[in-house]
Amino acid sequence: MVRWAIAATWPFGQMAVEVGSRLLASGVMGIDAVEEAVRAVELDPSIDSVGVGGIPNIEGEVQLDAALMRGRDLAVGAVAGVKGFSSPVGIARLVLEKTPHHLLVGEGAERYADAHGLERSQLLTQSSLEAWQKRREQLAQASSSPEVPGSHDTIGVVALDQRGGITAGTSTSGLAMKLPGRVGDSPLVGSGFYADDLAGAAVATGCGELIMRGCLSYAIVDLMRSGASPQEACGDALGGLVRRLEKDLPVRSATEDMTKMAVLAIDGEGNVGAAANHAEFDYAYCTSKEGKLHLVRASIIN
Amino acid sequence: MVRWAIAATWPFGQMAVEVGSRLLASGVMGIDAVEEAVRAVELDPSIDSVGVGGIPNIEGEVQLDAALMRGRDLAVGAVAGVKGFSSPVGIARLVLEKTPHHLLVGEGAERYADAHGLERSQLLTQSSLEAWQKRREQLAQASSSPEVPGSHDTIGVVALDQRGGITAGTSTSGLAMKLPGRVGDSPLVGSGFYADDLAGAAVATGCGELIMRGCLSYAIVDLMRSGASPQEACGDALGGLVRRLEKDLPVRSATEDMTKMAVLAIDGEGNVGAAANHAEFDYAYCTSKEGKLHLVRASIIN
Repeated sequence: MVRWAIAATWPFGQMAVEVGSRLLASGVMGIDAVEEAVRAVELDPSIDSVGVGGIPNIEGEVQLDAALMRGRDLAVGAVAGVKGFSSPVGIARLVLEKTPHHLLVGEGAERYADAHGLERSQLLTQSSLEAWQKRREQLAQASSSPEVPGSHDTIGVVALDQRGGITAGTSTSGLAMKLPGRVGDSPLVGSGFYADDLAGAAVATGCGELIMRGCLSYAIVDLMRSGASPQEACGDALGGLVRRLEKDLPVRSATEDMTKMAVLAIDGEGNVGAAANHAEFDYAYCTSKEGKLHLVRASIIN
Repeated sequence: MVRWAIAATWPFGQMAVEVGSRLLASGVMGIDAVEEAVRAVELDPSIDSVGVGGIPNIEGEVQLDAALMRGRDLAVGAVAGVKGFSSPVGIARLVLEKTPHHLLVGEGAERYADAHGLERSQLLTQSSLEAWQKRREQLAQASSSPEVPGSHDTIGVVALDQRGGITAGTSTSGLAMKLPGRVGDSPLVGSGFYADDLAGAAVATGCGELIMRGCLSYAIVDLMRSGASPQEACGDALGGLVRRLEKDLPVRSATEDMTKMAVLAIDGEGNVGAAANHAEFDYAYCTSKEGKLHLVRASIIN
């Protein structure tokens, strides 16, 4: 029997899985493990799509989104459009634990973080500034939107703890060159994340606008509630959305970042599944059974 | 056969249904009818939970949320935490039509509205200011939160147009005395609203935090997709969430505003249904069949 399990999106998810696995093995609650796992990625300036060093918006400012969901009572803490804090998932945790609210946005979220003594910090690194300048030049020259690799690689973490608690967490700097105030799926319950101890948890990464149209994370957890495995639920929910949207949009075997989506899920037995509508989605996972970190490429949905 | 139908939350929804019915009867697209229906309520200063004259946050500032969803392609336009504009649903429409995004929050949304020539206006009325001052005094004196009637009465509108298009729209000033930047379910796809031409549409009103935990609007539309009537879908989705949460929270036959929820749905045949976990939810509707406005009290879920 699996005592604990954790999975995270993208190759940088390996760092999250390492941090989270250590904590889950020591017996901490899933929400603590997932918060620390997400934070590890947020604080690494070399990861250009999350936290410090994240991709700036079109005006050169880094605006971050993050969320946590506790599957025991479906409680949520989330923040969106937050500037100047290195770990938005930490603010999301405060929202969950210390307010009657689930989502704070913009300046209100920043002032809430100030009031709780979180320190403001510089998020823009030399490298993210240079990448932004390059993108701005491309935008000025291009008639259509330039291809921006890695432009919406959200860290999403799902975990099962030793008490059977299921947690989901996300953090992202969002779409490259987004309009100020744009919020994608990552801090939106049901779209970017969902967790229910009685069913499982899911997270999403990719074009937030399309993920939102299908409430993908809720849809996946709902399928697991009806008996689907995480793998089946991911494939069926994403496949269903792709079929629903493909009349209007090039979402099948997507080659452009604006139509790429990927999902990752876990159930109460620690089974992990994933799906993508493109061939480049890797995810990391580890369970108590082997105690070994795996990096796996998700198969493309058909 | 019903050629068009429209339904809206709360007694003030009668105004929305009147405006929307006239437009739907004339053959306009549902999204135009729903936008105008919602706007009529936003611009009425006597309605103290939406738009002009809306309930201020704890600092005395009115922050508004609104959304529109087009069921043809599942496209969304939404804004959250917006100050100084009388019709946030108008900004939501611009987001849907003119940006690659679905949700803009805070200052970014306000500047986007500025850039499109929308005029800033004063939202705080003498009456909403006085209500805020009274609540502040109650808060200062009370050890527990004071009961604040009508503190989260969102206008939610669902409609079927003559081409079979299904639309959902919402607008609210949110929870009374909320923290600055707090966002509830109303501008969150799947929670406060969802619409799919192939299944139906739903909107929610009440404690946004609890509605978010169950992604109620998506859950209702998903049940209609599987063959449930709007009435069955509303009762089953809300009933399921109540059963899931009642271990931790007093959500059955709710008597406190912080645990009250209500939902309203429509399907592709123009059938309307609703449900609430309290005995005070009235909704308005009108269909082409009778052309007459009805105001109905939703039955409390069991």
